[in-house]
Amino acid sequence: MEKKRPLILISNDDGYHSKGLRSLIEMVSPLADLLVCAPESARSGFSCAFSAVEPLRLKLRRRWEGVDVWSCSGTPVDCVKIALDRLCGGRRPDMVIGGINHGDNASVNSHYSGTMGVTMEGCMKYIPSVAFSLCDHSDDADFAPLAPFVRSITERVLGEGLPRGVCLNVNFPRLKEFKGVRICRMARGTWGNEVVRCVHPHGYDYYWMTGEYTNDEPDADDTDNWALTNGYVAITPTQVDVTDYGMMERMKSEWTFLNVM
Amino acid sequence: MEKKRPLILISNDDGYHSKGLRSLIEMVSPLADLLVCAPESARSGFSCAFSAVEPLRLKLRRRWEGVDVWSCSGTPVDCVKIALDRLCGGRRPDMVIGGINHGDNASVNSHYSGTMGVTMEGCMKYIPSVAFSLCDHSDDADFAPLAPFVRSITERVLGEGLPRGVCLNVNFPRLKEFKGVRICRMARGTWGNEVVRCVHPHGYDYYWMTGEYTNDEPDADDTDNWALTNGYVAITPTQVDVTDYGMMERMKSEWTFLNVM
Repeated sequence: MEKKRPLILISNDDGYHSKGLRSLIEMVSPLADLLVCAPESARSGFSCAFSAVEPLRLKLRRRWEGVDVWSCSGTPVDCVKIALDRLCGGRRPDMVIGGINHGDNASVNSHYSGTMGVTMEGCMKYIPSVAFSLCDHSDDADFAPLAPFVRSITERVLGEGLPRGVCLNVNFPRLKEFKGVRICRMARGTWGNEVVRCVHPHGYDYYWMTGEYTNDEPDADDTDNWALTNGYVAITPTQVDVTDYGMMERMKSEWTFLNVM
Repeated sequence: MEKKRPLILISNDDGYHSKGLRSLIEMVSPLADLLVCAPESARSGFSCAFSAVEPLRLKLRRRWEGVDVWSCSGTPVDCVKIALDRLCGGRRPDMVIGGINHGDNASVNSHYSGTMGVTMEGCMKYIPSVAFSLCDHSDDADFAPLAPFVRSITERVLGEGLPRGVCLNVNFPRLKEFKGVRICRMARGTWGNEVVRCVHPHGYDYYWMTGEYTNDEPDADDTDNWALTNGYVAITPTQVDVTDYGMMERMKSEWTFLNVM
């Protein structure tokens, strides 16, 4: 008896037309049936945002490699929610993949990332979920060196699954060849100089968000930032449960002024 | 010698005109100088999103209780970033507060919440940060019962700070009186039935995001959902570092097919 091919739901935050999305489709289409629903245009920095007050549109845009590519007018998370609800034809995806992102989603960027939004949304729906990102923002970034890693990780997750509530944030340095793979923690880092003031032709001020990132623990060799800087693929297992359990126990004994119980 | 009053930066996701914001200003203005920068209109569900591709505007809207209230055209996170960069006049806030939100931000809602976006952004800047939310979406929700708790928690955090990388997610049930305060973990829960299809007068389909929340561990009495359902104020210490350390160690020994090192 033939085993049914698994189903992977793919989205991203760069939009349905992006090279990273197309590269991902090419890499994993031999492994599974694919359903693709991605934002109409770039939604970088959209985090886990969803559209609470705006109506959404869905459009079938094209077929790539025999795969339907839909666009949604909303956020990356909207793409996952609406695809699960409207486009899966009664099937439940075996995996959700976000990417391949044009740009780095390591360290605190994980919180801002729409690619990680896709992945966290899959994970919150208890579907094994992975984000792939390449440290190269350019439209024509070269994704080819990632292919064997993207395929191996996808095969493994399709075969073995992931524990509930844990997804993978996979970042690749911008290299032709990688030194290896490191399983990492998220580095502590900060953004600064984030606001640039400009003056509109009509005389009023407006602002662009930009910034410079600093790795606040550059000597620690177990972080995603370290791995990427040193030529390694960085895999960070990332959890939905953001409770700080140590702090929880300390507060129970120390915050007695509130009559905690 | 007189001690300088601390500075609190306040934002929210309901907009600068919201009752929850005004109530928060009234509650904490005796404790500190306040700077308020909130979205121009409702930005519920905006998570940690920031405006990567849209220019931003800042407007001084009003003075409430002697406090300048600014609006920003972007997301809740944009409000924090731009206020820190442009509006603090060289001072560094001693605390960031998000809220008071009209609506529940417990469990996975913490990931979608713009109020938590404000708080996470403060925390990622290493500023002690707290989110306050009331389980009542109505515009004229009654925030008065929260006042002594909001004040006590704010005084404590101003006095003692919080560990780097940890913020507090504080949720209040919709009650006149609370049974007490519980220090909680985030409940495992899921949203379902999230998409409603409608037909535009011109004949095409469009969709609204909505949904029903299910607490997937209703019997566990240590969660934020349990506390709120049973009449308690829920405080969940929430961390920026989303690494799953247990999974990290397991992957180092089990993911050998990738030649992890």
